[in-house]
Amino acid sequence: MIPNWLMQRVYLTPNKIALSYEKESWTFKQLHQVSMRYARQLKTNQLQSGDRIALLGASNVEMVFMIHACLLAGIEIVMLNNRLTDLEIDWQIEDAEVKAVLFADEFEAKIKSNKMDKISFSTVTQSRESPFGIEENWSPDQTVTIMYTSGTTGFPKGVRQTVNNHTSSALSSVLNLGLEENDVWLCTMPLFHISGFSILVRSVLYGMEVRLYEKFDAKKVAREIYEGTITRMSVVSVMLNQILLELERQEKTAHASFKTMLAGGGSIPIDYLKRANACRIPILQTYGMTETSSQTATLSANDALRKIGSAGKPLFFNQIKIKGATRAKEHGEVFIRGPHVTPGYIGRFQENSPLIDGWLPTGDIGYLDEEGYLYIVDRRSDLIISGGENIYPAEIENVLAAHPKVHEVGVCGKEHPKWGQTPVAFVVVSEKVEAEELMKYCEGQLAKYKVPSDIIFIESLPRNASNKLLRRELKQWLSQQ
Amino acid sequence: MIPNWLMQRVYLTPNKIALSYEKESWTFKQLHQVSMRYARQLKTNQLQSGDRIALLGASNVEMVFMIHACLLAGIEIVMLNNRLTDLEIDWQIEDAEVKAVLFADEFEAKIKSNKMDKISFSTVTQSRESPFGIEENWSPDQTVTIMYTSGTTGFPKGVRQTVNNHTSSALSSVLNLGLEENDVWLCTMPLFHISGFSILVRSVLYGMEVRLYEKFDAKKVAREIYEGTITRMSVVSVMLNQILLELERQEKTAHASFKTMLAGGGSIPIDYLKRANACRIPILQTYGMTETSSQTATLSANDALRKIGSAGKPLFFNQIKIKGATRAKEHGEVFIRGPHVTPGYIGRFQENSPLIDGWLPTGDIGYLDEEGYLYIVDRRSDLIISGGENIYPAEIENVLAAHPKVHEVGVCGKEHPKWGQTPVAFVVVSEKVEAEELMKYCEGQLAKYKVPSDIIFIESLPRNASNKLLRRELKQWLSQQ
Repeated sequence: MIPNWLMQRVYLTPNKIALSYEKESWTFKQLHQVSMRYARQLKTNQLQSGDRIALLGASNVEMVFMIHACLLAGIEIVMLNNRLTDLEIDWQIEDAEVKAVLFADEFEAKIKSNKMDKISFSTVTQSRESPFGIEENWSPDQTVTIMYTSGTTGFPKGVRQTVNNHTSSALSSVLNLGLEENDVWLCTMPLFHISGFSILVRSVLYGMEVRLYEKFDAKKVAREIYEGTITRMSVVSVMLNQILLELERQEKTAHASFKTMLAGGGSIPIDYLKRANACRIPILQTYGMTETSSQTATLSANDALRKIGSAGKPLFFNQIKIKGATRAKEHGEVFIRGPHVTPGYIGRFQENSPLIDGWLPTGDIGYLDEEGYLYIVDRRSDLIISGGENIYPAEIENVLAAHPKVHEVGVCGKEHPKWGQTPVAFVVVSEKVEAEELMKYCEGQLAKYKVPSDIIFIESLPRNASNKLLRRELKQWLSQQ
Repeated sequence: MIPNWLMQRVYLTPNKIALSYEKESWTFKQLHQVSMRYARQLKTNQLQSGDRIALLGASNVEMVFMIHACLLAGIEIVMLNNRLTDLEIDWQIEDAEVKAVLFADEFEAKIKSNKMDKISFSTVTQSRESPFGIEENWSPDQTVTIMYTSGTTGFPKGVRQTVNNHTSSALSSVLNLGLEENDVWLCTMPLFHISGFSILVRSVLYGMEVRLYEKFDAKKVAREIYEGTITRMSVVSVMLNQILLELERQEKTAHASFKTMLAGGGSIPIDYLKRANACRIPILQTYGMTETSSQTATLSANDALRKIGSAGKPLFFNQIKIKGATRAKEHGEVFIRGPHVTPGYIGRFQENSPLIDGWLPTGDIGYLDEEGYLYIVDRRSDLIISGGENIYPAEIENVLAAHPKVHEVGVCGKEHPKWGQTPVAFVVVSEKVEAEELMKYCEGQLAKYKVPSDIIFIESLPRNASNKLLRRELKQWLSQQ
């Protein structure tokens, strides 16, 4: 039994700041009041405890209210990535069999499916309020959020994240990062990602202010860091670089109260680590995924330069093992266990348990060194990470392979100075076609960041004896170009 | 499933300081090494996972090693109060049906019972080592410690404290108090009390240094506070006063890094709060008990003077209700619920569940104000708190009533400038007897702090219609004297 997060938090520290955005701020009491009003308005729209909805919006204050309204009311939320195409969104909301889609008005055009109710935020906030019975306590196994992630098949799977997953993730994190009375965590990550959502969870559990940006803005962020108006922040590599450039340009260093720069979504270049050091920004590299409700391992700032390339050690309640490894540095698949690991999927993958004997096989290849630090040497399913977004090659391959003039296709990641990586497609055609046509074709079906940056026409794909596509060879071809 | 605390901690931060005592200190790696050696030596003495032992020692470094050895090995520990008489100790170890008593050599004379093995610390540390299979993970329901506490009957009950009880207590506490990289918690409380033991648990969960004193020393403590060598501390009222006197005498204030003075064991006089304020010591008054594995509610330092007399609000995962109360300020019995609440007793009270519908009735009378702050207005079973030690009148009454010249007896607490309270006995004799004789009689059977400070001879005891002793009237008689 775990207390309804915001309900307990507003009882404990009603007057602490919960949320700020530009010049405005909200105490936990105010956040609770608005979210409770929204929850009563959702009830008027027939949405209540036990229902599952999909939520599509920007990462702004209204979205935070809507998320807390759903949490207070006990409504399961499928968090939709607003960068996806309408086709991708329809696939997810249909797979999730949601009762309704709640959408910020500006995203109306993104929802084509007619299989469920469609309710705009303005409809909700203009509704009258209906009373509802609030659950003071939650079952640990209750699903809070569902986030879709692709994999080897290229078909997105809806990952369940329970009350216990989110709670234990926040608790493990606090034991690792510490917590101070005046902590303010800057959120410029999308709220529909676990990286952003987990900051909201920490806020209600810790009684901590979230400073919210709808969009990342390096100049403003740099200022918050050197003026000491924030103490913690989550970034991906590309954001970190831009912040460092700003600080360097202005010849500033981080304020002494700045404690943690949690850097996820792939490894951080050594050059960035050194520059961050010079700017007095403690970088904590982290390894996590949707299936683990955020961080599973984190490298402490003290170890950043001593253990370059490492993702650190597991958080207190988490465990990591390398499948089959019998000694330090032996490579193998990374397995994860702990209270933060998802119990499973919804929708068409509902029956496919992600766990093997209680452990989550990540698909990533890695090793533990003699001190038990984790190193990831190869990403799962040839995962491409572009600006912190995960891209699975199979998803792009599935789309391109359906084009009438394409015979077969293989996708891999290409290094990119800004985004870390971008996807590149190697195409074998059945009939002559221009690269532009194929890109346009992709744009209609894939989120922009998934559309290949290059299309390379070739005679045949590299395959092994059992005809499996060898994406690693594609990468070698690229590096030879 | 919760990781074996010290085993996980030594993996995560082997080189952090775990423990210090006078000029010596031990890293988690060193603490783990010594404790593992002790565990292997316990194994040679036939003690291993699943066994229950009783532990009797001073609150020193060797005791910490021995405690961790038992935890690592999965041995349940009955924590014996070393201030008890041999009769009281025998009662507890026989009730607990322990396999053995482990005792620091200087306490040998305290153990009379022959119903179990008696193994001195020196026997253990001179034994050869035997390998044992260590459990990497614990079941949350596994009993870690058993602490005896008396109640209305005067018979001590062995309270089970599980892995989950201790873990969730430490986690709730960190959300309330915060945690910093350089935190050092000074422990001058007995390790056999939950107030002291819980500091050891926080240490391994947080990766935090415990600075240990075998005995409280106001002068030394004051110095640590103004020099900033400690950041947190637990006290009872009498200790706080002595520390304040020292700081005042030396005209010192607490170092800026000193964060928390957690004050338990009864309420703190207003005068102390004001003086602590002047010395820049943040006082957090707390309400907890053996059955809740330490704190259940805590008053923040900011509220200390605004909410005088309050025990604060529950910690995040805890809940408090006033039985039968339908509005703010209505008095009633305090009920507690949460993952920190004991599942029950061992020994002769094993079958008596302490819970009612999942809630722990504390016996204390209190109320919640309109903001939800808890106030305790009357202690359970006329509990007397003397220098932070709980004394149940019935326990003293049981002893005195057995004296051949005593007809009947009633005990209540009397205000005391240093100890807060001391017990006073009202005695109706069947035959003339001197007070000295009765006191001496008590000394053989009761820990020193339980022996009445005054014995008052009277004609008859105040009783109600159903013949129940009215201890409250005894108190009124005292105040009229």
